[in-house]
Amino acid sequence: MYPTLFLPYSGLFFDYIESHKKHTMTVQQYHDTYEIYLQTKGERYIFLENICHAMKPGDVCIIRPFDLHYGESRTSDYYGRYVLNFPEEKLDLLLTQGERQLLFQRFHSCILHLTGEVWERTLTILQGLSACWDQSGFLAEKLQYSYVFQLLMLLKDRMPEQEEPAISGVSSDVRPEILQAIHYLNEHYRDPIDLDTIADTVHMSKYHFCRLFSKATGATFVEYLNNVRLTKVHQMLLETALSLSQIAEQTGFSSPGHLSRVFGSVYQMSPSKFRKQKHDIS
Amino acid sequence: MYPTLFLPYSGLFFDYIESHKKHTMTVQQYHDTYEIYLQTKGERYIFLENICHAMKPGDVCIIRPFDLHYGESRTSDYYGRYVLNFPEEKLDLLLTQGERQLLFQRFHSCILHLTGEVWERTLTILQGLSACWDQSGFLAEKLQYSYVFQLLMLLKDRMPEQEEPAISGVSSDVRPEILQAIHYLNEHYRDPIDLDTIADTVHMSKYHFCRLFSKATGATFVEYLNNVRLTKVHQMLLETALSLSQIAEQTGFSSPGHLSRVFGSVYQMSPSKFRKQKHDIS
Repeated sequence: MYPTLFLPYSGLFFDYIESHKKHTMTVQQYHDTYEIYLQTKGERYIFLENICHAMKPGDVCIIRPFDLHYGESRTSDYYGRYVLNFPEEKLDLLLTQGERQLLFQRFHSCILHLTGEVWERTLTILQGLSACWDQSGFLAEKLQYSYVFQLLMLLKDRMPEQEEPAISGVSSDVRPEILQAIHYLNEHYRDPIDLDTIADTVHMSKYHFCRLFSKATGATFVEYLNNVRLTKVHQMLLETALSLSQIAEQTGFSSPGHLSRVFGSVYQMSPSKFRKQKHDIS
Repeated sequence: MYPTLFLPYSGLFFDYIESHKKHTMTVQQYHDTYEIYLQTKGERYIFLENICHAMKPGDVCIIRPFDLHYGESRTSDYYGRYVLNFPEEKLDLLLTQGERQLLFQRFHSCILHLTGEVWERTLTILQGLSACWDQSGFLAEKLQYSYVFQLLMLLKDRMPEQEEPAISGVSSDVRPEILQAIHYLNEHYRDPIDLDTIADTVHMSKYHFCRLFSKATGATFVEYLNNVRLTKVHQMLLETALSLSQIAEQTGFSSPGHLSRVFGSVYQMSPSKFRKQKHDIS
């Protein structure tokens, strides 16, 4: 069983779906790329870090690399959506490294609500990308990223100020106590955490808490905690030279052995092999 | 009197006009930038090198640097059009020098007829540019050129093969004899040319020929010949280190003195001062 799904994208992934069936992600996902999700029709429930949100047409969800997310159909079966995944570094096709870094400083995981002319222009950019998406050859990739660049330029001016790490459950039916628990896990994953204490803190029975928690996040309490911790492990394996003991300590695993067991059950390989493989590719 | 107008643009020039009045350029024009002219409404007569054409909605005119052109309203007073001017080198904001040169190898002065989805996408790109045209600041210029890049990518696949230097008078009321004379001038400007011989060759009276010629090109016979020669002089002054005598010889002027007199009457300065000034700027 894979309680988390890591979907790697080496380049640009672009997809439009119009679906008449309910669709529920089987597991929480995260990527090492940016994701931009745009709701065009119907409704879709999204769980993302501290955010539980019922996405409506005009809503855009920006998901930073390594941020866990989960989506499902709740109130409406019918929906339409664009999804875009791209590695930040690929923008270097068009930008200098400094420009790219300055641009991405503006982005953090959040939900934007677009209306009127701005929403129209957003759709227009995505239709442009759609028209050249299957092209290859001379300058084709640069052309595709020119649309990504235009989209980022449009969204950057609409980004809210970096929020306080607050609980956000706009237009969702998720109970405040569950949001509070999610927020607690996101903040304290480095510490020992146990289910009994958390359920106690929010004044719920363990059974009731587990049911509501899993409805909100798409994962059980233990899966969710491991998922949060594993995204941090993943990131540290790629971006630092920390030893496995140091990583275990900074991500709340009781020992390197514990970390390796949980990691192995998700990625089907040891953390050190994972690190080596990634470095060999890049 | 300025029988030619040289319009210099250092950056991107973008303009949309919807006009209910006839508009006639007072003189033939040329630029040291690319020009892309798109007819959206009504009709407009365009004279460009060997091309006399009645532009209709969906028609795009691509004008290479230093190519003389002239426009006026003939059959229709009402028209709408986009005009875009940009220096080829500015695309280096987004492209490597090699990519840019490869891309521009595909372009030559011509008329394209766009329809259906391609025309819609063209308009969409221009509306996108229109929306960010007045922006300045972080990445604004790159954003503007990303639209120019997308437009060029769309047009490049629709470019006809480089035409034989042929006479093209599609959908215009210009007489074949005049087109033949224009073609002759464009090809033979290096040689001594006189009006009597040309009129004789096309079996017209000098008076009749002059009237029709000026109707087609927007310039008198002598002005037109000087204009063609001066664009070549202009280009040689900028792009070569040839002496004034050498330039005069290669552009059909009888002497450096003759060249200087004609040049001075248009540019209000001597060729050598013009060359020096341009080099000081760049």
